[in-house]
Amino acid sequence: MRVGNLAGRSVVIVGERAVDVETASGGRFGPDPQAAYQDWDAFRAWAATASEAAGAAFDQADLGAPVPEPRQVFAIGLNYRDHAAESGFDVPDGLPPVFTKFATSITGPVTEVALPPGGNTDWEVELVAVIGRRARNVAAADAWDHIAGLTVGQDISERVSQLAGPAPQFSLGKSFPGFAPTGPWVVTPDEFADPDDLALGSAINGEDVQKARTRELIFSIPLLIERLSAVLPLLPGDLVFTGTPAGVGLGRSPQRWLAPGDELVSYVEGIGELRQRFV
Amino acid sequence: MRVGNLAGRSVVIVGERAVDVETASGGRFGPDPQAAYQDWDAFRAWAATASEAAGAAFDQADLGAPVPEPRQVFAIGLNYRDHAAESGFDVPDGLPPVFTKFATSITGPVTEVALPPGGNTDWEVELVAVIGRRARNVAAADAWDHIAGLTVGQDISERVSQLAGPAPQFSLGKSFPGFAPTGPWVVTPDEFADPDDLALGSAINGEDVQKARTRELIFSIPLLIERLSAVLPLLPGDLVFTGTPAGVGLGRSPQRWLAPGDELVSYVEGIGELRQRFV
Repeated sequence: MRVGNLAGRSVVIVGERAVDVETASGGRFGPDPQAAYQDWDAFRAWAATASEAAGAAFDQADLGAPVPEPRQVFAIGLNYRDHAAESGFDVPDGLPPVFTKFATSITGPVTEVALPPGGNTDWEVELVAVIGRRARNVAAADAWDHIAGLTVGQDISERVSQLAGPAPQFSLGKSFPGFAPTGPWVVTPDEFADPDDLALGSAINGEDVQKARTRELIFSIPLLIERLSAVLPLLPGDLVFTGTPAGVGLGRSPQRWLAPGDELVSYVEGIGELRQRFV
Repeated sequence: MRVGNLAGRSVVIVGERAVDVETASGGRFGPDPQAAYQDWDAFRAWAATASEAAGAAFDQADLGAPVPEPRQVFAIGLNYRDHAAESGFDVPDGLPPVFTKFATSITGPVTEVALPPGGNTDWEVELVAVIGRRARNVAAADAWDHIAGLTVGQDISERVSQLAGPAPQFSLGKSFPGFAPTGPWVVTPDEFADPDDLALGSAINGEDVQKARTRELIFSIPLLIERLSAVLPLLPGDLVFTGTPAGVGLGRSPQRWLAPGDELVSYVEGIGELRQRFV
């Protein structure tokens, strides 16, 4: 099942068509895309009955962020060994670095992004987990029961501000407007043969720059849920950006940054792709 | 003017009494304490007309977080010189470290807080600014026009997880449940002779441990609004924890951590105090 946001309205995607949730449910579920996660079990059961015939054709450019107003956004750093190495950091144990992408940076899948003047703007394709059921002290073995689904995210990062100062905190440099594209929709875990092993990657102007599989995650999604939920509750509709594999501009020699006119495509197998043009 | 949250309902405090906003406004403003900041100019104009006679006596223990569901929580590190020094960091220039306190850590002013097992839990009294009007690229000279008011915050911090790993990110170790007490209410800037120079401090079991004035902030509230809003928009109802002065347990010799039974009182001049008991 694919759940999304079409021009600000909650939709279920069936085949090539978008079913408007409020209309098709006769008002049982409202139009707010965020609200689907507040009552996820009921929403999911209803959405499974949505038929392609009730839907309408749509343009991917009209898709918004599938989870537009999460209460909490967790973003994980250094969660692939070769990316930790290219970034010049040791591999974490216990818990990886956890920061946030501030809510105003979240957008949909097809956007233009303004490059911050004087910055070094980099790309980071990531698999993103969406919480569907409150999680507190959840064991890894039970973690998938708390996940509504998966989506694609770009953890766009301005490296000068990310790494500046006496105790570099990553959140602000990763939260310029448009720096958290997500989408094109949330796909439920049952749609994947193995949701812990998905191909993901990114390309700039058609040239592959990142290519990996999520089985290479040091902290898998179940382990992240276990470790995060040991600290605090994860709420329905929260996002977890799970970290990026190697191939970012920071780790290249010479280093490479996004430039005006560049088109960045990011994908995760079985979900879809994001497309950002930089200006 | 003092605006708060009494048992989950929006109130204006007049003298010693709490005026219920929904009731006294005849439903013009709703009961959600967060909603006051969405329409702050109108709310503030109405709240100025609230009379003590329309209010009821109340118990401070029934006050909740005055801003319970901010979209964004900005927390500033190393913003007093002597605290940067006691923490072993250089003084920041350009922009101080910015992290978040995740939303689930926010509570009201009088609480019990569970100490994380195996942790080193520390205290950090802070002045907290509440955004009242969207702020994007706002100059310091105009910043106070975007602030609804000020409240007291405790940036309670578990130092083991805050400082662990190859690229320590502060947010998670500062976001255990109950680690962001706030209140007792939001006080509008006009109530202060100089809102940029307020005494603040904290005491454990009656012993003063922190004592400073907010004029010692390296980045004042106006400068923080300028620097943050140059990166991203600040939204009505967002919080900015402005940083803590010297006197935390991390900086002591020997180091000192909060223990079961400790009572921590935190205050800012002209606002009020928070009271946390640790268990």
